[in-house]
Amino acid sequence: LANPVIITLLTDFGTSDYYVAAMKGVMLSRWSEARLVDITHGIASQNVLSAAYVLLGAYAQFPAGSIHLVVVDPGVGSKRRGIILRSDRYLFVGPDNGVFSLAVPEAVEAFEIQPSAYLAATVSNTFHGRDIFAPVAAALAAGVRPEELGASICDRKQLAPLASVTGSRIKSQIIHIDRFGNAVTGIERHHLHSDQLSPSFVLEAGENAIRVQKRFYAEQPAVFGEPFVIWGSLNFLEISVANGSAAESLKLSLGEDVTLELGRHS
Amino acid sequence: LANPVIITLLTDFGTSDYYVAAMKGVMLSRWSEARLVDITHGIASQNVLSAAYVLLGAYAQFPAGSIHLVVVDPGVGSKRRGIILRSDRYLFVGPDNGVFSLAVPEAVEAFEIQPSAYLAATVSNTFHGRDIFAPVAAALAAGVRPEELGASICDRKQLAPLASVTGSRIKSQIIHIDRFGNAVTGIERHHLHSDQLSPSFVLEAGENAIRVQKRFYAEQPAVFGEPFVIWGSLNFLEISVANGSAAESLKLSLGEDVTLELGRHS
Amino acid sequence: LANPVIITLLTDFGTSDYYVAAMKGVMLSRWSEARLVDITHGIASQNVLSAAYVLLGAYAQFPAGSIHLVVVDPGVGSKRRGIILRSDRYLFVGPDNGVFSLAVPEAVEAFEIQPSAYLAATVSNTFHGRDIFAPVAAALAAGVRPEELGASICDRKQLAPLASVTGSRIKSQIIHIDRFGNAVTGIERHHLHSDQLSPSFVLEAGENAIRVQKRFYAEQPAVFGEPFVIWGSLNFLEISVANGSAAESLKLSLGEDVTLELGRHS
Repeated sequence: LANPVIITLLTDFGTSDYYVAAMKGVMLSRWSEARLVDITHGIASQNVLSAAYVLLGAYAQFPAGSIHLVVVDPGVGSKRRGIILRSDRYLFVGPDNGVFSLAVPEAVEAFEIQPSAYLAATVSNTFHGRDIFAPVAAALAAGVRPEELGASICDRKQLAPLASVTGSRIKSQIIHIDRFGNAVTGIERHHLHSDQLSPSFVLEAGENAIRVQKRFYAEQPAVFGEPFVIWGSLNFLEISVANGSAAESLKLSLGEDVTLELGRHS
Repeated sequence: LANPVIITLLTDFGTSDYYVAAMKGVMLSRWSEARLVDITHGIASQNVLSAAYVLLGAYAQFPAGSIHLVVVDPGVGSKRRGIILRSDRYLFVGPDNGVFSLAVPEAVEAFEIQPSAYLAATVSNTFHGRDIFAPVAAALAAGVRPEELGASICDRKQLAPLASVTGSRIKSQIIHIDRFGNAVTGIERHHLHSDQLSPSFVLEAGENAIRVQKRFYAEQPAVFGEPFVIWGSLNFLEISVANGSAAESLKLSLGEDVTLELGRHS
Repeated sequence: LANPVIITLLTDFGTSDYYVAAMKGVMLSRWSEARLVDITHGIASQNVLSAAYVLLGAYAQFPAGSIHLVVVDPGVGSKRRGIILRSDRYLFVGPDNGVFSLAVPEAVEAFEIQPSAYLAATVSNTFHGRDIFAPVAAALAAGVRPEELGASICDRKQLAPLASVTGSRIKSQIIHIDRFGNAVTGIERHHLHSDQLSPSFVLEAGENAIRVQKRFYAEQPAVFGEPFVIWGSLNFLEISVANGSAAESLKLSLGEDVTLELGRHS
């Protein structure tokens, strides 16, 4: 007996409405053996980039064969496409708005979801998660092939690059703020020559200039309220403050520009 | 081998306390094959009407045989009854305070939960979810019949009607505010002759007079901050604003009165 | 066929990031039969005492053999130990910072987690939940014995006592604030001679002096906004207000001192 297929869910629906449960009910009604695991439903409303980052942090931990269902979908009801992606290990289902850009290489097979008997009998204008994406994920879990649900495409939407490097300067933005108030930038380790920033580095974010780097959050000395940068567990540079919320105390918001000046010896 | 019975949970307990987990532990200890699916635990504290609306949006998506456990229970510890409802497809368990009114037709069989060996050995004054309702749901999942858990009743509590129609005027209230700040009114499609409101309609809510209708959230033109009405996916009329929270920007709260004036040609 | 082992999760990671899902993916990849149940991820950031209280409220409801995984870990990356505890009925996994003090008797067997092939190939400085604790919980669920994962220890960290009794006075603090704004003190029933406080009792908390006791939240008379004390369902004394949030209206925070003066006839 094979293990039941895992379907993960990642949305910006929150957890205080019926939206997520309706999607779960639809999937369990169509394929009762599906095993549902929430990634999160707390993505900042309609923030595709933050969703792409959270998907990147979670998807690769799941067993091969898992189906990742993402519904962060500012364009619901308009002409944007619904897509299925098939990588070596996983299937992905959701709107074609770039939300899969960070997790899924450009080269994987992509399919545009087409009307079919697998979808809800009536598709609403406002809730494709329930009427299109959840039914498609359940069909995939039941063994229906992407080819039966859509048509092959080769132009799925990609996000713009998260960071641009010019000499010793890297420009990026805040792409995610986590529960602890850590502000994640789009600057990745591979943008730099070394994990250790040069002693003269400075990260500018909003009205702040940050010149301290730590290796882990509890590293000493911890100056109360002092901001510092740290490589997060996904290898993006994060802005933190000791014993507090960086986003609050430094007044950082999603989308805010940041500039890392590496100095002479980087 | 039959599929395990699904028990859905809908409460106002939030998810930062031990309350929900205690209920889940009780159910899994008594019937380890139960399959637990959260609808939400984020109902506004003690708001029976909002809970009734969210239940309406979720319950019918689940497979036949599912048990819907609802604990939004301002009267816990007082004399209000605990009940079991049995419809064609589902069982429902929770307090008799009207929370099932929107989802469950008045005619279904109802049972008042009675003391029995199925309940917790000691029933607290403060936590019937753990001590009464979760044990009853687990017993039902294990195949115990409602008749063994309670006595038939025919006077369960109903909510007052959500809207009243007088000529071209419909009075109602805000019954739910969703995660995006959409304010759901108690006005339903069947109250109107047509999906399309007349060109001269006006919806008054608080200090606002709304005169724009959209078919889907991303419909153009999107005037930043402009309020509009839209039929939500449950066919209730919702108040939204483009790219923002209607509840915040229009200062709308749960329970606020709304009046829809349909104008001459509705 | 035995029932799959339940692993409960209790963290302060929130539910809007990838952290919890990464841990779940790790566990399901290593032991696909694990059955994951959230206790909560909403513990106040890095608040070990509140986590200990919530664990106390939930753990004992789960079936024997369950594994309780707790990651509230202000010292991640520093020298604090990771531990496994083995009681008669359960296993516990998490950091050695006192978080198990309320739920687990001092006498149970304890093991310090050691580097082994069961952990992640690379252990980050920032995310031991994913790289150490989740892999250990999955290994335990798969039947690996604590002895294979760590070395026996007898000096695990304990929290300081929650309350101190001097004559008719009990000093304690606010150890948890629940979703409804009830402020839970560290005063337990066993500190008192009787469930019913004496008529002349007074509980001082911040700038408030509370002199009313209720048996259940809806007990009459309910004076709007009146503060009262009540024994919560874990037998700790809680501060509540009728139809409102005690924490908000009385300006109570986690860690705030409280003093119960029992008066002459207690």
